[in-house]
Amino acid sequence: MYPIEELQKIIYSEISRRSSELAVSKPGELFSPVVYTLGMGGKRIRPVLLLMGYNLSSESIDNAIPAALAMEVFHNFTLLHDDIMDKSQLRRNKPTVHVKFDQNSAILSGDAMVFLSYKYLLECKSDNLPEVLDLFTDTALEICQGQQYDMTFEKRMDVTEAEYIEMIRLKTAVLLGCCLKAGSLLAGAGNRLADQLYTLGSNLGIAFQLQDDFLDTFGDQKEFGKMIGGDISGNKKTYLLIKALESATGETRQKLLDLISSEKFDPAEKIEAVKEIFNQLSIKNITEKKINSFYENAFIILNNMALKEDQKIYLKTFINNIRDRKY
Amino acid sequence: MYPIEELQKIIYSEISRRSSELAVSKPGELFSPVVYTLGMGGKRIRPVLLLMGYNLSSESIDNAIPAALAMEVFHNFTLLHDDIMDKSQLRRNKPTVHVKFDQNSAILSGDAMVFLSYKYLLECKSDNLPEVLDLFTDTALEICQGQQYDMTFEKRMDVTEAEYIEMIRLKTAVLLGCCLKAGSLLAGAGNRLADQLYTLGSNLGIAFQLQDDFLDTFGDQKEFGKMIGGDISGNKKTYLLIKALESATGETRQKLLDLISSEKFDPAEKIEAVKEIFNQLSIKNITEKKINSFYENAFIILNNMALKEDQKIYLKTFINNIRDRKY
Repeated sequence: MYPIEELQKIIYSEISRRSSELAVSKPGELFSPVVYTLGMGGKRIRPVLLLMGYNLSSESIDNAIPAALAMEVFHNFTLLHDDIMDKSQLRRNKPTVHVKFDQNSAILSGDAMVFLSYKYLLECKSDNLPEVLDLFTDTALEICQGQQYDMTFEKRMDVTEAEYIEMIRLKTAVLLGCCLKAGSLLAGAGNRLADQLYTLGSNLGIAFQLQDDFLDTFGDQKEFGKMIGGDISGNKKTYLLIKALESATGETRQKLLDLISSEKFDPAEKIEAVKEIFNQLSIKNITEKKINSFYENAFIILNNMALKEDQKIYLKTFINNIRDRKY
Repeated sequence: MYPIEELQKIIYSEISRRSSELAVSKPGELFSPVVYTLGMGGKRIRPVLLLMGYNLSSESIDNAIPAALAMEVFHNFTLLHDDIMDKSQLRRNKPTVHVKFDQNSAILSGDAMVFLSYKYLLECKSDNLPEVLDLFTDTALEICQGQQYDMTFEKRMDVTEAEYIEMIRLKTAVLLGCCLKAGSLLAGAGNRLADQLYTLGSNLGIAFQLQDDFLDTFGDQKEFGKMIGGDISGNKKTYLLIKALESATGETRQKLLDLISSEKFDPAEKIEAVKEIFNQLSIKNITEKKINSFYENAFIILNNMALKEDQKIYLKTFINNIRDRKY
């Protein structure tokens, strides 16, 4: 298996090579925002997952590189359009595309990124390509559904835990499953392994998103990078808040509802007050347990897979690295 | 060959069947705007072209119906996102999606329509499907380029005729070519016929768009349906205006520039004044000649195609029907 750092290097160099091509494509107004978005950085987890899924069944990974790029371009398209819908001003400490350029550029360049991702995916020659295209297209539709649920949930105070988990499964987790499975299929693996990788990826994805929620409130300021409590001050409907609304009663519940529906609070005080309620309700512990349950699911699936022992250790190490992240 | 009316009926019934499926898909907030958009009507020229291209090489057209639908769904996606970018309030006398629902719905439901169009296209079983997917994806990227040029040109006063024709080729014409060619390829036709159909379609598309420009100013109010002069009052950069700006000199040029850059004019007076300048500069005649030249190109290609005589007559009649339209 390729070391993770090696896979990341391959992806960085592919993004850089394709960005140079896009940077000279016409009209510049259409492609500059694409190049800008791809250059914003990020963990590049999705293309790494695709290459890993491929590498499990093929020693050489060259043929999978365009597909890995496709997943990263597609993921960046979702961020770009989500940022317009959420009116986000910053991403990774840089102005979002609709702020740096304008809204029309963000819409149209996002659209172009969808077609670029199909274009890159179509470059992969594999007998299983039609199946991968089906998977990718179904996944993309699910992500649209997840984003819609996310927006709808922002206006509701009675979102259940099950609804929330389903939303993040659609919005975030299915793409991780899709990346692993697509890589596996492109390498010619059978359906059993590919399906197991999908389930592993989607469990990993749910754990990953819950951890995002967790770190935003309970992370360590130094290691986290951005301000702790952003979700609280922005009244974001996270797993933490949903669990708190579920279990809070009486005065505590009323105080929590006041805090998240009023604009009058000082952000730092509000973050402290909400965290205080979270502590009363053991939200930290409840969330950690939930995160662990999804990581455990992933490990159970991993153990059942028909892989060599060193491949299992490789995947386990990768998952544990994600699990141990502080940002 | 299937009569055109028969093809239209098949498409109406397919749109209606799929819309019923979409109408019960969850979440409703995501799919209602899709159903609304598909129900707005329109000439359905693109799916008809796809079925025609297929029917030229296959007696049965059943296998091509999902691909035909894909082209209509994709076309409607472009209208939906263009309407946001152009801040259009009405389409076919109905409120646009971002007006009837909201902007976020219009962005996200538009995105979902892209993936639905790939989903429908992927339903078609054909050995040539990978080639069709390449064609469709390249075409979609070209349409994004065309839309970007269109927006950029709105801010320029020195757009040349060649630039304008290239813009409408990208924004409008390539999709007509793509539909004919995709139908032909899906039916298993060879590259020569498919490529000729593409060129025929793109010439038809350019003629079609120039005719849109023409009818908006010189059409007959009764037959045209919407208000004559909408492009003039909206300062739209049409072929007519570009040719006028190209040939007007001295006082006439200054008057034209004043008319299209000022907000102070009464719409009816402005339309009259601009038409008066167009008449001085023989814009009506120049535009008719240009439109005819693209229809003539289409007929020349048609004559060179390896088709049966009755198939040629069929296509010729179809093109002449489009050419004779008054709206």
